[in-house]
Amino acid sequence: MTYRSHHCGELRIADVGNKVKLSGWVQKSRDLGGLTFIDLRDRYGITQLVFNLDTDADLCRRARELGREYVITIEGTVCERSSKNPARATGDIEIIVKNFKVLNASKVPPFTIEDETDGGDELRMRYRYLDLRRSPVQQNIVFRSKLAIETRKYLDSVGFVEVETPFLIKSTPEGARDFVVPSRMNPGEFYALPQSPQTFKQLLMVSGLDRYFQIVKCFRDEDLRSDRQPEFTQIDCEMAFVDREEVLMTFEALTKHLFQSTLGIELPAFPRMDYSEALEQYGSDKPDLRFDIKIHPLNEIVKDKGFAVFDKVEYVGGICVPAVAEQWSNKDLKKLTEWVQRPQIGARGLVYSKFQEDGSVKSSVGKFFDDEAQRQWLNHFGGKKGDVILILAGEKDKTLKQLGELRLEMGRSLGLMKVGEFKPLWVVDFPLLEWDEDSNRFYAMHHPFTAPATEDIAKMESTDRTVLKNLRANAYDLVINGAEIGGGSIRIHDRSLQQRNFDLLGFSREEAEEQFGFLMGAFEYGAPPHGGIAFGFDRLCAVMNNQSSIRDFIAFPKNNTGRDLMIDAPARVSEEQLDELHLELKNLK
Amino acid sequence: MTYRSHHCGELRIADVGNKVKLSGWVQKSRDLGGLTFIDLRDRYGITQLVFNLDTDADLCRRARELGREYVITIEGTVCERSSKNPARATGDIEIIVKNFKVLNASKVPPFTIEDETDGGDELRMRYRYLDLRRSPVQQNIVFRSKLAIETRKYLDSVGFVEVETPFLIKSTPEGARDFVVPSRMNPGEFYALPQSPQTFKQLLMVSGLDRYFQIVKCFRDEDLRSDRQPEFTQIDCEMAFVDREEVLMTFEALTKHLFQSTLGIELPAFPRMDYSEALEQYGSDKPDLRFDIKIHPLNEIVKDKGFAVFDKVEYVGGICVPAVAEQWSNKDLKKLTEWVQRPQIGARGLVYSKFQEDGSVKSSVGKFFDDEAQRQWLNHFGGKKGDVILILAGEKDKTLKQLGELRLEMGRSLGLMKVGEFKPLWVVDFPLLEWDEDSNRFYAMHHPFTAPATEDIAKMESTDRTVLKNLRANAYDLVINGAEIGGGSIRIHDRSLQQRNFDLLGFSREEAEEQFGFLMGAFEYGAPPHGGIAFGFDRLCAVMNNQSSIRDFIAFPKNNTGRDLMIDAPARVSEEQLDELHLELKNLK
Repeated sequence: MTYRSHHCGELRIADVGNKVKLSGWVQKSRDLGGLTFIDLRDRYGITQLVFNLDTDADLCRRARELGREYVITIEGTVCERSSKNPARATGDIEIIVKNFKVLNASKVPPFTIEDETDGGDELRMRYRYLDLRRSPVQQNIVFRSKLAIETRKYLDSVGFVEVETPFLIKSTPEGARDFVVPSRMNPGEFYALPQSPQTFKQLLMVSGLDRYFQIVKCFRDEDLRSDRQPEFTQIDCEMAFVDREEVLMTFEALTKHLFQSTLGIELPAFPRMDYSEALEQYGSDKPDLRFDIKIHPLNEIVKDKGFAVFDKVEYVGGICVPAVAEQWSNKDLKKLTEWVQRPQIGARGLVYSKFQEDGSVKSSVGKFFDDEAQRQWLNHFGGKKGDVILILAGEKDKTLKQLGELRLEMGRSLGLMKVGEFKPLWVVDFPLLEWDEDSNRFYAMHHPFTAPATEDIAKMESTDRTVLKNLRANAYDLVINGAEIGGGSIRIHDRSLQQRNFDLLGFSREEAEEQFGFLMGAFEYGAPPHGGIAFGFDRLCAVMNNQSSIRDFIAFPKNNTGRDLMIDAPARVSEEQLDELHLELKNLK
Repeated sequence: MTYRSHHCGELRIADVGNKVKLSGWVQKSRDLGGLTFIDLRDRYGITQLVFNLDTDADLCRRARELGREYVITIEGTVCERSSKNPARATGDIEIIVKNFKVLNASKVPPFTIEDETDGGDELRMRYRYLDLRRSPVQQNIVFRSKLAIETRKYLDSVGFVEVETPFLIKSTPEGARDFVVPSRMNPGEFYALPQSPQTFKQLLMVSGLDRYFQIVKCFRDEDLRSDRQPEFTQIDCEMAFVDREEVLMTFEALTKHLFQSTLGIELPAFPRMDYSEALEQYGSDKPDLRFDIKIHPLNEIVKDKGFAVFDKVEYVGGICVPAVAEQWSNKDLKKLTEWVQRPQIGARGLVYSKFQEDGSVKSSVGKFFDDEAQRQWLNHFGGKKGDVILILAGEKDKTLKQLGELRLEMGRSLGLMKVGEFKPLWVVDFPLLEWDEDSNRFYAMHHPFTAPATEDIAKMESTDRTVLKNLRANAYDLVINGAEIGGGSIRIHDRSLQQRNFDLLGFSREEAEEQFGFLMGAFEYGAPPHGGIAFGFDRLCAVMNNQSSIRDFIAFPKNNTGRDLMIDAPARVSEEQLDELHLELKNLK
């Protein structure tokens, strides 16, 4: 052991008297009279080193020269500390250093390597290797590793085989944009990086692998929103000879295992909710169930009472916010009105009814609805004195979404989402197809390989757009705390049904054959019924740690323009490389 | 359970009398008088189904219609077989089928789905999903999964953290060609797919992750030789605060664990051999130690004896092949001479001395060396009557390689490499630099981040090419049965030493800064000493199963032109895609 006999989180009172060797980074240095204390840090913890000016003046003076983040290796003796530090695992001991060596010096870091740092986002991205020294970031990466190995151990224990599917595949214009990779050996041709291993995992089911999984990088060339990454990681799974129930139970068990083994949390059975119910009651296909405010429709109650705004719209609905009537001022309600009117939400206005503790009612529509009418609304919500009803009106789909956003804003601002509380939910019975007005065609709500609900298979032959819009898919999402953690479906395994689905999605026969002929061909050689799911692994890490950004769980993330600021990629390549690939740049500004 | 209560490898004599549900593929069907037997197959095994024409004529007639590879689900009762099949785990029982349903039909497969198939390579690649149904191929994929999870469990148990490094990185012209990925959001710029996570794992050491590993895809755009793939998998590892000894012991322990946990084989301690010794004695930097024929130099003994061929060359050396003198005819020796003269080997000729059992000596150089002289050679080799000495002469490096090839050919043709025997070996003390005559420059033997041996650091400042050629690297390879399984090194962690190494490799300061500035920058912020290794995971799978082709251990391999015959990739992409990427094709034939 050239560099250490122990790591910096290891020594305890029982080690007192032992000679040890440690290596690590200088976290902090303090000179107190004749003593110099250094906190030596590695991944495992911090150990206090002591240098005594009286005993070894030279050594102590050299120690005083050590800057932050210097890497040193020391030899010394473990001693009991006079003032113990119970907040630190090694807090009972310190090392009387006999000698040390500087393994590497360090310039002054561009930001402090502490739990709370003074470095901005861009600086920390540029020096990501230093940001990763900070305990919260490093712990995220260690958590991710633990979550991955627990996933693998569990799936292995229930018979899943991890199979690596290829990264250099074929571009398919359906869905998001592909990253493409020019092939030097096949001039003019390109590979694509997979957006998911979807078709390959289905082929593995055709090949009889029975239970497949993979923790795998996927790629999407999208305009990046704040919390998207061009490369992201999925836990990708598929099973043969299963119905929806078996898939849900298998991955509910996996999820429970992950929470139990990494956080020590026992999750109860996951409730299930129809897609339509999720939209009607929560204004979202991924309801956050940590608080129980629900959306109620009010059309029946408020229509034809002389208030034109309510009378002429498709939908009126609201939420009842408990116990805020006395607390909310008119200014607060004005602010909330402005909040729903922001373009990101897009509501025309906000109607409220405040039910004061003294029994009086204050409302923005008092002119049209008397107190009695409004108390009827309160009953409708099951509300009580002290509550406030917030009402939006407009086109149904849009208004439900706005109410869903308003509901979440209430959850956030009133502190209704408790840290450490987890509310998983299966959302089921999604529509199969989505009509897009702009392009005048159907898109697959999940993806083109999703099977319709068994009862709806016959309706696939319909040419009536309304019938087709109402087709249900045998698809499901796993939602935790309002975040979509996983999504999947039972797949089509019959060539003619797959062909029909491509027809509905507007693929010509030639396009379908060119892009997915290999899969439809495989269906002709004994494809078993199969289905699966894919978890967003980055998101799962973040949600399990009550964090909103996936970036903190990725060792080397990219910024919003897809750039790695540390290595400065992407970058120009040489003319020789382009020549070999038969490529020329064009139309660059 | 819609489709099965048990799988096809599960039922035993203890299950007799139980009603069960099975699903799977029709492997084989036989009609014997009034009975029809079907072998039903899934990943787990084969179960025999019985249909009785007397009992249920309709059902039996429908069963007789089932073709090979049809997917069916059946219900029936487990019965004891009258003629048991001890070769099959379910061979004690059969299922009397009560009813069944066809889940999917199958066309006649293009080749037989049996252990030995009639399908050629290309056909099997095109229908890889059917090839993967064959038990030997499927078992390879299952083995790979098991090897991966055992690797992860072991490394996790000794404190390694699996960290995902990015796939979209920066192109560096050093080494093999990169695959590049045009960036739509950064027009004119490209990402590169990693040839290995080398720089990222070093940055993780700078960040204090301490012990990193990853089982990860890597990419090289090479002209593919028979057993190379453009995408391949590494077990990539790095450790901080270690010397060579700790790295070797850590990964020797991993390798032992893998052999033990997947094959039940206990490997002894791995011997170590200098690179120079490997070349001198085995004519290879990856000696196959399964048989102990060694190369001996003969210059001292054969020179100045009047045989001009030996006198004028740099090197004369040979191997002693045991107990073949009586067995080898002149024709055999002529064939062997032709073998070494093939362009792939490139020897000018072959000298032999046969030591017959009757004490006589037959040689191709009897005119120049009398029996006594040749017996002296035999003593030199430690050989005995019945052996044959084979001698090559020429330029030293080339001749050693030729002798190495000849040695392996002897091992193969004489059956000296036993299936199931494993001879691991650490090859150490590689040269740091390789001189390339064509480009008149040094290349890194391992890679530019490899540290020189500590004793040789000072010599890095030399400008004497001979001194530089003799620099030793702190690098090591793990070799098993003549295959390079892993390679690694202690890395440079000092900015100035890294800069000096780039200088020696002919990088301008600007090139070094542009390509690796982020790494050299990181070395200035307290980089710890570190080192690591990368295992070729595909190769490891093949070697552990005594197979020579890695392709059989890859679920969806590419052919020699980098093409996936099943999905037909790479392929043309649309003009719109190229426009968005600011790319134009040029110079296509």
